[in-house]
Amino acid sequence: MNDNLDALFKPRAVALIGASQKELSIGNVIIKNLLHYQFRGPVYPINPKVDEIRGLKAYPSVLDIPGEVDLAHIVIPPPFVPEEVENCGKKGIKAIIINTAGFKEMGAEGQALEDDFLARARKYGIRIVGPNCQGIINSDPEFNAYCNFTFTFPQPGHISVVAQSGGVGAVIMQAFHDMGIGQRMYASNGNGSDVSITEIISYYGKDDQTKAVVLYAESLENPQEFIAVAKQVTSRKPILAIIAGRTDKGAEASRSHIGGLAGNISLDLIYKKAGILTFRSQEDLCHAAVALSSQPVPKGNKVGIITNTGGPSVIAIDELVSCGMEIPALSENAASVLKGTMLESASIRNPLDVVATAGPGHFKSALEVMMKEPQFDSIYINFVTPPFVDCENVAREIAAAAKAGNKPIVCNYMTDKQKWSGTSKILKEGGIPTFDFAETAARALHALVRYNEIRSAKEGEVKRFTDVNKEKVKSILENAISLKREILSATEVYTILEAYRVPVAPWKVANDVKAAVSAAGEIGFPVVIKADSEQIIHKSDVGGVAINIQNEREAKDVAERMKRDLGDGIRFFVQKFLPKGRELIIGAKAVDGVGNIIMFGLGGIFVEILKDVVFSISPVSDTEALEMITSIKAEPLIRGFRGEKGINIEKTSEIIQRISMLATDFPDIKELDLNPLFASDGNICVVDSRIIIETAPKNDYNN
Amino acid sequence: MNDNLDALFKPRAVALIGASQKELSIGNVIIKNLLHYQFRGPVYPINPKVDEIRGLKAYPSVLDIPGEVDLAHIVIPPPFVPEEVENCGKKGIKAIIINTAGFKEMGAEGQALEDDFLARARKYGIRIVGPNCQGIINSDPEFNAYCNFTFTFPQPGHISVVAQSGGVGAVIMQAFHDMGIGQRMYASNGNGSDVSITEIISYYGKDDQTKAVVLYAESLENPQEFIAVAKQVTSRKPILAIIAGRTDKGAEASRSHIGGLAGNISLDLIYKKAGILTFRSQEDLCHAAVALSSQPVPKGNKVGIITNTGGPSVIAIDELVSCGMEIPALSENAASVLKGTMLESASIRNPLDVVATAGPGHFKSALEVMMKEPQFDSIYINFVTPPFVDCENVAREIAAAAKAGNKPIVCNYMTDKQKWSGTSKILKEGGIPTFDFAETAARALHALVRYNEIRSAKEGEVKRFTDVNKEKVKSILENAISLKREILSATEVYTILEAYRVPVAPWKVANDVKAAVSAAGEIGFPVVIKADSEQIIHKSDVGGVAINIQNEREAKDVAERMKRDLGDGIRFFVQKFLPKGRELIIGAKAVDGVGNIIMFGLGGIFVEILKDVVFSISPVSDTEALEMITSIKAEPLIRGFRGEKGINIEKTSEIIQRISMLATDFPDIKELDLNPLFASDGNICVVDSRIIIETAPKNDYNN
Repeated sequence: MNDNLDALFKPRAVALIGASQKELSIGNVIIKNLLHYQFRGPVYPINPKVDEIRGLKAYPSVLDIPGEVDLAHIVIPPPFVPEEVENCGKKGIKAIIINTAGFKEMGAEGQALEDDFLARARKYGIRIVGPNCQGIINSDPEFNAYCNFTFTFPQPGHISVVAQSGGVGAVIMQAFHDMGIGQRMYASNGNGSDVSITEIISYYGKDDQTKAVVLYAESLENPQEFIAVAKQVTSRKPILAIIAGRTDKGAEASRSHIGGLAGNISLDLIYKKAGILTFRSQEDLCHAAVALSSQPVPKGNKVGIITNTGGPSVIAIDELVSCGMEIPALSENAASVLKGTMLESASIRNPLDVVATAGPGHFKSALEVMMKEPQFDSIYINFVTPPFVDCENVAREIAAAAKAGNKPIVCNYMTDKQKWSGTSKILKEGGIPTFDFAETAARALHALVRYNEIRSAKEGEVKRFTDVNKEKVKSILENAISLKREILSATEVYTILEAYRVPVAPWKVANDVKAAVSAAGEIGFPVVIKADSEQIIHKSDVGGVAINIQNEREAKDVAERMKRDLGDGIRFFVQKFLPKGRELIIGAKAVDGVGNIIMFGLGGIFVEILKDVVFSISPVSDTEALEMITSIKAEPLIRGFRGEKGINIEKTSEIIQRISMLATDFPDIKELDLNPLFASDGNICVVDSRIIIETAPKNDYNN
Repeated sequence: MNDNLDALFKPRAVALIGASQKELSIGNVIIKNLLHYQFRGPVYPINPKVDEIRGLKAYPSVLDIPGEVDLAHIVIPPPFVPEEVENCGKKGIKAIIINTAGFKEMGAEGQALEDDFLARARKYGIRIVGPNCQGIINSDPEFNAYCNFTFTFPQPGHISVVAQSGGVGAVIMQAFHDMGIGQRMYASNGNGSDVSITEIISYYGKDDQTKAVVLYAESLENPQEFIAVAKQVTSRKPILAIIAGRTDKGAEASRSHIGGLAGNISLDLIYKKAGILTFRSQEDLCHAAVALSSQPVPKGNKVGIITNTGGPSVIAIDELVSCGMEIPALSENAASVLKGTMLESASIRNPLDVVATAGPGHFKSALEVMMKEPQFDSIYINFVTPPFVDCENVAREIAAAAKAGNKPIVCNYMTDKQKWSGTSKILKEGGIPTFDFAETAARALHALVRYNEIRSAKEGEVKRFTDVNKEKVKSILENAISLKREILSATEVYTILEAYRVPVAPWKVANDVKAAVSAAGEIGFPVVIKADSEQIIHKSDVGGVAINIQNEREAKDVAERMKRDLGDGIRFFVQKFLPKGRELIIGAKAVDGVGNIIMFGLGGIFVEILKDVVFSISPVSDTEALEMITSIKAEPLIRGFRGEKGINIEKTSEIIQRISMLATDFPDIKELDLNPLFASDGNICVVDSRIIIETAPKNDYNN
């Protein structure tokens, strides 16, 4: 990864290969945009057939340009692209935006062209954005680079955007623009043949003027690299993202619990692991970015509320409380100060209703007191603009309080912005994030609190257990792979689990009835007997499972019946029958590029009906394992409930980490279910398990 | 209820008592607003000290006005209000908006003034809005009545707003204004001393030009009347409301399950029962109102999607699917038509990606095909405005399709509205609801679907069971009330339940040990023995409950021990000990003004940890009872799961309806818990129950 993208984002001169005199063609619009946005350097239209475009001298080729050029756009048809990349290399151009579409997404021919231009670019050390992309924008007045064919021209600001989809990027850019909010940098990298979203995020991370990063991706090339880079960035500044494709139902056809439940959640989990703030709504994301790029990070979730109107305060509290924010009472001291400074009809509590007739002095005192109150981490203001109040000076007081204090302020500003333009301007220049609705302001404040939680979360440790027997697992897997057996036998599964020191119910394998009976005796009744055969997948459907066998006679009857029904070829898997404790489920599922998704939940109805399970991307650290265990909805059952003991959290956490390590060590394991584990009396033990592995490409599973 | 509010909403002449020459005083702002909004009739400022205000002749009193007057504002201090109401009566004025605050909310003196002006108003048949309110607006060009001191001047439209909080009303009015959406009528009735929200809603219901009603209330005077009226209105046009105070934790201190769980949910339940569409966010509500007031109601939840950009389509699908909408495939026939009409790069499926270069013809064909497809109930469009497309004619095609078809269309319209003002205008004039974000457009479409579900829901029947013994319940309650006993004894509780034919586990009461042992024998072992005494509330805490008693000897031991430990005064409540089936909980809680809230859920962890319970307002109809039973999250357990039988839904529904009837018949019952009921083998039976009644005012419960 090379995140020095200065040639791309800070070009001193731009060439446009495929420049056109035709209005509304991309080759014309980009020049128009560069000129309109007052790009600081020269713009060189490249077109061998004309002399000038939009008043600029046109050149036959980049090689004819007199001065140095950092960045070129290429908007010509695909077949001509590689040669122009070569020319750019010769010219010493360091970055190219290929707006043209029609490469690898169009099949082999396009792929060949793409390979060609990439090879040439590499030869010259050129970085490529695209193909099939919009390009970049940098609002820094030193550059004013609008290397893009879209139509929204941002004011300078502190929010930088990177979007895989130019459509969503454009919507977000327009939304900030409509809110009167400036932006720093913008990039839409389309097919992402070279410069990746990860590199762009890393670049934004190092840009001092970028205070918040907005991300829209539908997939990520190298998720583990992305996580590592994004984690670095989020420790310094927030990254905000929309979860795209969260309802994709593609994975439902999968064959195990972990498969069906994991669904298309990997983007969500990647973002979580990277410390990225996620949003379901673009508007909420934009609002949060405004708050995060302008306000300090609060130390906690406790809010002081100042309002000059009733109903919106009810709505604000509903939203704040729903988000998990706290609204502590005013201290006695604060209340007594406010009793002296507020209007008689004011309501001296939290929320502090200064009433509609409150003027600048009342707001000033309210803000001073709230800012000083140590139990408030942030200030929420409902500010409606009554015609009979000096609203501009109220706004000045709010701006002054924000400047003087170190607590974030968000403001639900309810007005006609045209009529109250003076007031609006003061708030804007004071850097006060304003929102039209109480609930949107509340959610923006909540984003600040979430970011504080992310930044202050304890960094966990990924444990490497040294007591495992890797070799044994390796040989079992190699054997199964060589036989193209995707579903491991019970013997194999339990041997693997024991090799990784995952506690399992005592078991033995027996080749005949007599051995089975004797194994049962050695394990100790009651036992379970299962027909163990690679040929039988759904054992219980064919009478291949018998539970709670109390004595030798029962064991013999069962084993004989199975042999009779299922054929002489079967072996017997004999296992201790455990009293039913609290059921748990732990699983791992390999996801291309991501590694593994690890799952935890309570078993039975909790997983099957309530879907009360949590996921995390491997490797799972100790703190992540603990967070998984304690974040299911039925968490009180974990802790113990109504006399029934809780489960051993430490042992459960260790099993999760061991499974994460096992799945990470052996990428051939596609899906692994421990379902159920029984937890009781401080112990925890696997009672049933299944492992599916990757063999040769083969898709006609009988399942 | 008298919902003829024409004098209020359709005044032909308005007087302002307390008119003032002072700019920015309410007595001046209202005149300014009436003139600015071009009120069609004369405006009479009333002020004995001046001759004219804002160019209008002022009169010393309403009695001096030469012409007829329908409506008067009163903005003078409270003590002078009653006399002016009297004058209005003499003048023949039929409606008064009292903007002034300071009546009953300020104590006895204010209450006396309010009683005084109300008595005078009644004498003359005058309707009063307020006091402590904004007033009304009617945008009908025949009236142009802006009888209000706020600052947003709506264009004529089809949405009418009623808000208890003027603050929220003003925010909503401004939001529609900012969206360029007209409004029909507006009312904020403040303290609501006379004209109620219910009457205003009824009035809006009868107004042909009102296509959607927006409501904000924090409380409702007479919920049952409100429900009856709102139900009528929602059968013809949608009512949309914000749930205010949904996180209020005030009820948590209550003493039973139903109390703690019901919380402040009555507004939510009232709205549900009335068929009102509820929203958590004002913005979502406004968006939905725009869609509902301009589009036909879809027949179902199946959406056809047309898009000219990729990412926003991913986001739209996420939101639509999350909302429970379906996105069926295109028919083969439709696909084959589209293959002939779309661009080569278009993606012929649902979503139909016409691609960014699609022009009016492509949109036309897409719309024609989608409108014709019988499996689509509605059309969702993502429309970004590329600089290289004839967007105005695309907009014309969308408007034409909406006009020609009978399916609703919503549009995520992504543009710079200033630069594409022509396109925006065409969409607006075509009545196409447009939204800035994919997810907000999707949610607006979902509101249309929800309204269809409300309108097409089956009307249930409230059953009156004739086999109950009301007299018996009455005498038990009267006796307990006369003794000021709030918590009924087990004997009383079970007698009441049996009187209403609620199935309970067999039970007997015994006065001494010998009788207890004999009762146990008669019921049949195993039994439960409880110490039954009005003095012991938490029986199990003091050893007053013994379960699973197997024989006479055990029964004798237990009864003797209880007598020894708890005193000679106790009786014994002996009951059949039932095998634990699926646990249910059913409850009722009286709520002032509402009647009763009825609760249903699974017992144990489902109620205590997962809070998986549902509520409904009494009287609960058969369809409502069924909906309650099937709408809990753990619904599959109700139906039966993994070999375990489901519960008897019919019997459960009957118990819910009987409890609803019992609670409705006896308002003295404050809280009633059946917790648990055991359901197994098609039977269902109350195993424990508690009833708390209202006696004299008394709040020092020992609980």
